[in-house]
Amino acid sequence: MAGNILGTAFRLVSFGASHDPAIGGVVEGCPAGLKVDLAAIQAELDRRRPGSTPLGTARREADTVEFLSGLLDEVTLGTPIALVIRNTDARPQDYDHLKDTFRPGHADLTWEQKYGLRDHRGGGRASARETAVRVAAGAIARQLLAHHGIRVNAWVSGVGEVRLDHPYAELDLGRVWSSDVRCPDEAAAARMTALIEQVRAEGDTVGGLVSCVATGVPAGLGEPVFDKLHADLGRAMLGINAVKGFQVGSGFAAATLRGSQHNDGYGIGSEGEVRTATNRSGGVQGGISNGEDIVFDVAFKPASTLMRTQRSVDREGRPVELEGRGRHDPCVVPRAVPVVEAMTCLVLADHLLRQRMARL
Amino acid sequence: MAGNILGTAFRLVSFGASHDPAIGGVVEGCPAGLKVDLAAIQAELDRRRPGSTPLGTARREADTVEFLSGLLDEVTLGTPIALVIRNTDARPQDYDHLKDTFRPGHADLTWEQKYGLRDHRGGGRASARETAVRVAAGAIARQLLAHHGIRVNAWVSGVGEVRLDHPYAELDLGRVWSSDVRCPDEAAAARMTALIEQVRAEGDTVGGLVSCVATGVPAGLGEPVFDKLHADLGRAMLGINAVKGFQVGSGFAAATLRGSQHNDGYGIGSEGEVRTATNRSGGVQGGISNGEDIVFDVAFKPASTLMRTQRSVDREGRPVELEGRGRHDPCVVPRAVPVVEAMTCLVLADHLLRQRMARL
Amino acid sequence: MAGNILGTAFRLVSFGASHDPAIGGVVEGCPAGLKVDLAAIQAELDRRRPGSTPLGTARREADTVEFLSGLLDEVTLGTPIALVIRNTDARPQDYDHLKDTFRPGHADLTWEQKYGLRDHRGGGRASARETAVRVAAGAIARQLLAHHGIRVNAWVSGVGEVRLDHPYAELDLGRVWSSDVRCPDEAAAARMTALIEQVRAEGDTVGGLVSCVATGVPAGLGEPVFDKLHADLGRAMLGINAVKGFQVGSGFAAATLRGSQHNDGYGIGSEGEVRTATNRSGGVQGGISNGEDIVFDVAFKPASTLMRTQRSVDREGRPVELEGRGRHDPCVVPRAVPVVEAMTCLVLADHLLRQRMARL
Amino acid sequence: MAGNILGTAFRLVSFGASHDPAIGGVVEGCPAGLKVDLAAIQAELDRRRPGSTPLGTARREADTVEFLSGLLDEVTLGTPIALVIRNTDARPQDYDHLKDTFRPGHADLTWEQKYGLRDHRGGGRASARETAVRVAAGAIARQLLAHHGIRVNAWVSGVGEVRLDHPYAELDLGRVWSSDVRCPDEAAAARMTALIEQVRAEGDTVGGLVSCVATGVPAGLGEPVFDKLHADLGRAMLGINAVKGFQVGSGFAAATLRGSQHNDGYGIGSEGEVRTATNRSGGVQGGISNGEDIVFDVAFKPASTLMRTQRSVDREGRPVELEGRGRHDPCVVPRAVPVVEAMTCLVLADHLLRQRMARL
Repeated sequence: MAGNILGTAFRLVSFGASHDPAIGGVVEGCPAGLKVDLAAIQAELDRRRPGSTPLGTARREADTVEFLSGLLDEVTLGTPIALVIRNTDARPQDYDHLKDTFRPGHADLTWEQKYGLRDHRGGGRASARETAVRVAAGAIARQLLAHHGIRVNAWVSGVGEVRLDHPYAELDLGRVWSSDVRCPDEAAAARMTALIEQVRAEGDTVGGLVSCVATGVPAGLGEPVFDKLHADLGRAMLGINAVKGFQVGSGFAAATLRGSQHNDGYGIGSEGEVRTATNRSGGVQGGISNGEDIVFDVAFKPASTLMRTQRSVDREGRPVELEGRGRHDPCVVPRAVPVVEAMTCLVLADHLLRQRMARL
Repeated sequence: MAGNILGTAFRLVSFGASHDPAIGGVVEGCPAGLKVDLAAIQAELDRRRPGSTPLGTARREADTVEFLSGLLDEVTLGTPIALVIRNTDARPQDYDHLKDTFRPGHADLTWEQKYGLRDHRGGGRASARETAVRVAAGAIARQLLAHHGIRVNAWVSGVGEVRLDHPYAELDLGRVWSSDVRCPDEAAAARMTALIEQVRAEGDTVGGLVSCVATGVPAGLGEPVFDKLHADLGRAMLGINAVKGFQVGSGFAAATLRGSQHNDGYGIGSEGEVRTATNRSGGVQGGISNGEDIVFDVAFKPASTLMRTQRSVDREGRPVELEGRGRHDPCVVPRAVPVVEAMTCLVLADHLLRQRMARL
Repeated sequence: MAGNILGTAFRLVSFGASHDPAIGGVVEGCPAGLKVDLAAIQAELDRRRPGSTPLGTARREADTVEFLSGLLDEVTLGTPIALVIRNTDARPQDYDHLKDTFRPGHADLTWEQKYGLRDHRGGGRASARETAVRVAAGAIARQLLAHHGIRVNAWVSGVGEVRLDHPYAELDLGRVWSSDVRCPDEAAAARMTALIEQVRAEGDTVGGLVSCVATGVPAGLGEPVFDKLHADLGRAMLGINAVKGFQVGSGFAAATLRGSQHNDGYGIGSEGEVRTATNRSGGVQGGISNGEDIVFDVAFKPASTLMRTQRSVDREGRPVELEGRGRHDPCVVPRAVPVVEAMTCLVLADHLLRQRMARL
Repeated sequence: MAGNILGTAFRLVSFGASHDPAIGGVVEGCPAGLKVDLAAIQAELDRRRPGSTPLGTARREADTVEFLSGLLDEVTLGTPIALVIRNTDARPQDYDHLKDTFRPGHADLTWEQKYGLRDHRGGGRASARETAVRVAAGAIARQLLAHHGIRVNAWVSGVGEVRLDHPYAELDLGRVWSSDVRCPDEAAAARMTALIEQVRAEGDTVGGLVSCVATGVPAGLGEPVFDKLHADLGRAMLGINAVKGFQVGSGFAAATLRGSQHNDGYGIGSEGEVRTATNRSGGVQGGISNGEDIVFDVAFKPASTLMRTQRSVDREGRPVELEGRGRHDPCVVPRAVPVVEAMTCLVLADHLLRQRMARL
């Protein structure tokens, strides 16, 4: 009810805030018998952690994950897997000036409106720091998916006005992580990087796009009517900090098209299975996967904290000048890529298990 | 688990398919003591039903709702409100030719992939006919919201390439329902209507956009981390048939902006409350309502059934020619407007109740 | 949240009250592909309906169930199965004298304390009439269980001081339904019947016990830690009207025993499987089924409505004399037997599906 | 779905096993603004921990709870409260001989049947060690309840054949914790203690009863139809290790009574409110609290581990002799008292919050 649990069969319970002793989570519902590669989980965390790219925040966190339960000899037991990531580089004093002030664009005001009080230290639980938990849990989900032949890849497809316009089939997704900006196309990556550096120099921030594809997803995942696969994916993406939009397959462009242009015609695949010739549906028809690649885009707004003075108000409604302080990302999308992947893995793992109950 | 229940505190359980004896739903969790205007519920259903606009399908359904429980003297008792809408103009024989064939763009294939069998009659439960249930239940939610001063309005803001570009504040939302195409701007409505008529004449279909605003929403609704208000709204919208995209506030445009352009500055309202000068956030900061209007857009693809011959395959993978048959909408967005409103009302009612538990 | 939904994977949503137009339910999560015997469902309803035994109420209800959705050619589609039972012999005027009065032992007072208002007609939704819905839904669950070799039988094992003391293995459970009192032992049944007739003649009521056994339950059902199989069974039983106690296996007697007396020793079954020599555990160890029979007992209090004058109070707290009126059972246990079976079937079906997610 | 989450509004997610690095939990849904007494939480843990009574196991655990999140200056923030208790005196090597053997009466066999593998170290997650988490979380719930005037007390009311037969109103519940056996009546406590010592000397174990009363519970808690207050309490109790039975108010004795004996007559309280003269209902009518004390009893079987040699089987079904080893309680009920209280607090806190949504 209080919004900290994702999923129904494969579930993540998330806890912790930016300046708590730790953040962490409990993965509930992971089937027994999965051999877990702990180093691979840590490697995924390393991709997201502050300092993982020179384009991000100056905060330094080791983001070392400790597993407290649920595993024996690195095999899942079917019991809850608890994981904890200690906050080590917290500087709560950096935020004392925010105790009575609300930063524009941030969640400071609304959390206080909701609860009547708030943790002002680094945005508290509204901080994107919490997404490290999702990455760790998503890494477990990813290993479950891999066991079933499913792979998930995301990349930066836009920074400000710079867009990566190649169809994803033409991209070498193996090059995402070697790019600081997490864009697999060298030319686009260079332009994106230049833009971020310029924005940072101006004390400003800029928005961007992340695209994601899941391959090997079997047909049949997704539950009608309300728990459609792309609806649950969209909800998961909209649950990531700074996300303002989601589209699957043809997305917003579909609104401008004719049915005769849009329908994916059927053909027969190499093993006699029904395939679509095109993939405007984005791998989902009627909310259920059709066996094609699942493809979607996520729009991120520019980060709200600027390294400039902004005007704001305090708790009594008095105008205040707000200096830019703290350690922040000029553009969130490079570090959002692992989070988009993780949330995708969590949703797919959930629906993979749910599908086990669809038939006699 | 099987995807037919929406919400956690204020819940809708939906049942029924296009050619079943009836469709219907159970509203669970509506507080006791709400005086319900039954005629208003029927009036909302009348706005969505086939035949409500000359731009829609030729199917004729009275869509008369019968309430089986939950009310005494038209006051809610706190118990489940069951409602049933009989299917009266079902013509299952129209669909006999689809028993072994999968229509491109439809859910025929994926439902069979999921369940191993399917109801081929009129799309079965994947038919948009089911959305009548949501409209009826949403009408109850709307009356609960009205009791708390919340109003929800949606309208068609795009058909194909035709866009309504006026900011919503300049629109007279009282004129939505007097427009066949459900667009409150006369000039835009005329162009949209012309396009739909042309598309219909060509045996084709066209996509479109629906926009929605909720006013009077108190600050504090929405649950971090995963159940953010706009995440739940997005999920609800993506759960409507033919929806491919969702954006809140600045939406996809935010990806191209700088933080210095995007942040909504704070000021003080007439009653001393903190207000934002602009509303790029769309009324939601950090997933929680801030008291401003909640504004979002929903992208619909063109309907998949064309009044043309399409190529498809049958269950054995053999190519077949598929004639355009049945009764369908050339453009779904006019009839989708009440569904968008209803889903919005259901999500807001749910979060309104959930907020009661946030504070001591 | 509002308490009208049972189960997590195989779910029943219940609606309706004693004097509403109808009662009914929605079964959500039944797997696709189950051939349903509709006549068998009706037959189960007939066992519970008023008039099914001469020892029950004089109210006459046909209890004819109508299926609105979820089936095609009597096969489940994986979609929600809605069922409706019309109330035909409702006599709301019988209850006008209760509008402002609270009957001792009934839920009149507490429902009004909870909701601020209530449906006074026949106890409203607190009436045991609602249990007909559970029997209909339970009959579907039973057919799913039968497909997996599971059978569920309940019987009356006590009426007042009269007890059926034979171990259930010595009973011929095929004789339950031919006994008016639903007790398979002829001698005990005769004594129970005589006691109920005497109590009825005195305008009084009497409590009783129902026992239940589930055979063929595979090992492994039940979820630690909170959703133990016997905990969910206990909750389901305590959710039946008038139930005051539940025990599994050795039950309350276990509190008096030594471990050396209580432990079920292990041996080897005919197919090499591990079996217990005794069954004090009642088929559940650590909350998980062990493959042995699941055995439990349910205690019912005497019905609260007497055919005698009782003292009570009205809404303003003034003392009133309350005449015995309406149509009621002198002893509820005979008609509770199908309800105990139905609730057992619903819980087992739920756990049967949940177990599909326990292993890789 | 996997059974590790209790509650719907006020929730506990439990994790960890007997020989994991830690056990712990996440409390989700606790309202913001509650001042928490951390020392009082630790004090409750101290009542349950091994070594708290000379009648218990020889295992020694500090059971020091660490809070990782959800609090600022000891006030709840509305965010998840994560708590961790390190396992410090684990001796996994004590259990090597159980890797391939199933202890009679334990969950060893069924967990392996469920998951295909198991944590054999000290019973893994089936160990009662996990209940420390419930006590810590229950202590938070208790502080929320105290804020609303609700108090919960449990005590040992039976050990083997020794019963405490005084009505609870005659007991001095302030003396529970000064008694090693957790029985407030000195004479009964002495006989219980003697019995436990004798049983321990014989290398045997013995069952017992715990009774519980909640006072100050407002009328109106509990949700019809399936989530009745006593049904949720019963489920919570049956979810405690070794529990075989639950009864509320008159309980199993009700089965033997007449309605004319059983009904609680109404009268008027000192403040004009409707009260019952007796309390056979146990404070719950129709599943909803009536404002009277909530009273129930819980039956525990004797612990399964004996300090004697028992016959058992191994994974291949071969007979083995099982020596009594490890550190165990001869009678579980003294240390179960805090667990019964904790589970009661968790259930009541959940329903207290849920009731906020019952009325307009």
